[in-house]
Amino acid sequence: MSKNTPVVILTNPQMGENIGATARAMLNFGLAELRLVAPRDGWPNERAVDMSAGALEKMPPVQVFDTLQDAIADLHVLYATTARPRDMVKPVLTPRQAAMDASQRIENNHAVGFVFGAERAGMSNDEVALCHNIVNIPTNPDFSSLNLGQAVLLMAHEYYQATNKTIAKALDLGASPPASQKNFEHFFKRLEGELADGGFFQAEGLRPTMLKNIRSIFTRAELSEQEVNTLQGIISALIGKKTQHKSNNKKAAKSK
Amino acid sequence: MSKNTPVVILTNPQMGENIGATARAMLNFGLAELRLVAPRDGWPNERAVDMSAGALEKMPPVQVFDTLQDAIADLHVLYATTARPRDMVKPVLTPRQAAMDASQRIENNHAVGFVFGAERAGMSNDEVALCHNIVNIPTNPDFSSLNLGQAVLLMAHEYYQATNKTIAKALDLGASPPASQKNFEHFFKRLEGELADGGFFQAEGLRPTMLKNIRSIFTRAELSEQEVNTLQGIISALIGKKTQHKSNNKKAAKSK
Repeated sequence: MSKNTPVVILTNPQMGENIGATARAMLNFGLAELRLVAPRDGWPNERAVDMSAGALEKMPPVQVFDTLQDAIADLHVLYATTARPRDMVKPVLTPRQAAMDASQRIENNHAVGFVFGAERAGMSNDEVALCHNIVNIPTNPDFSSLNLGQAVLLMAHEYYQATNKTIAKALDLGASPPASQKNFEHFFKRLEGELADGGFFQAEGLRPTMLKNIRSIFTRAELSEQEVNTLQGIISALIGKKTQHKSNNKKAAKSK
Repeated sequence: MSKNTPVVILTNPQMGENIGATARAMLNFGLAELRLVAPRDGWPNERAVDMSAGALEKMPPVQVFDTLQDAIADLHVLYATTARPRDMVKPVLTPRQAAMDASQRIENNHAVGFVFGAERAGMSNDEVALCHNIVNIPTNPDFSSLNLGQAVLLMAHEYYQATNKTIAKALDLGASPPASQKNFEHFFKRLEGELADGGFFQAEGLRPTMLKNIRSIFTRAELSEQEVNTLQGIISALIGKKTQHKSNNKKAAKSK
């Protein structure tokens, strides 16, 4: 049997609101299979539906079990989320490490489950003993209490990050393509000429260094074609020459 | 001026509950400086205090400003969290990338701010224009709505992860130290001998391979000293010899 995404299992959840928040957080990050072990207020639960913001309607039906052992019977690898240290010899992972581990197992067609305990008590030692790994969410030791929905949100977010190629730092250039070097050099040569005319380079010996520093401002900005045109317009406006430069943009043209 | 952690700025927040959830999420991950721009219901706000689970009392007083420009006047680098693409040429980062970038800037004593927009409308284009980077939280495109508190939680979690050395996969061995190789070999030799006595190795030629496979089970488990003693006790119990092996643990001793 192969599962494509981890199952989320809540043991003895108390408040319907938290079950709903769990469902919402799951679906935000593409997890859809939710199982409950002995929910205090039974199932279905109206408050859970309200709090899920539509997630429960979009997910496959939630499955309810009497014991954690029943709920995990068809799964291969379990991660127990717990805030307290346990006197048990198990790997202790951050959510990030657990997400990477889980995503590798999913790729190998292992069926994976993330288990979360009841709101106050968390998981019992007997429940943790059934799981292969312990997940601890690193938090500020002076203010560490996360609620159930938040813990699920962080775990699901980490799983989503582990499975979706992290988008490289992307510059959103909108409709305009990046500036070609040719156009940029055209602008920069003009700038240099106008600066020289204006007596900007007080000592000729400093000119190369000053130019390098100015160039660095613009290369760092990774200009778009449109922005180079805008800069041309700015030069025109500043020098007051109103030169009809071929790449003046409309604004500069209007300022004549 | 140097700031040790990023400032969180909410522009035009509407519901006190969300301001409280923001404060709680911030303090969970060690962020403590919260600024509000023109909160709809004024400040202080009782619902915010309730929802913050004590965080607002522990944090420095929240500062309130009329405009985003006022709120960020003393900061150096701003990250605008927004779900919608904008027609502006700015770097677009994931929370993880933004967190890494921000932590480097904090190390260089830059003052950093994470800006979040109003619940429904998000940040205006004019507000985004004041910021240096855009942060997009990658979510399931079919169910992408995060609330304000959740967005802050994820950003603060990522910042905490970026600044706290990620804990390597750790095996929690409790009170017992890892098993020494000497003790493990002592156990394994005994196991091999008992298996041979019991006729386990049907073909002598297969013995080395079978032993390697069995050994692999135990090395993978990274046993503690106590667990090796337990395994010795298990052998004793199974062979029924009730041998008083020096490293039998109490349980095995009881089963005599």
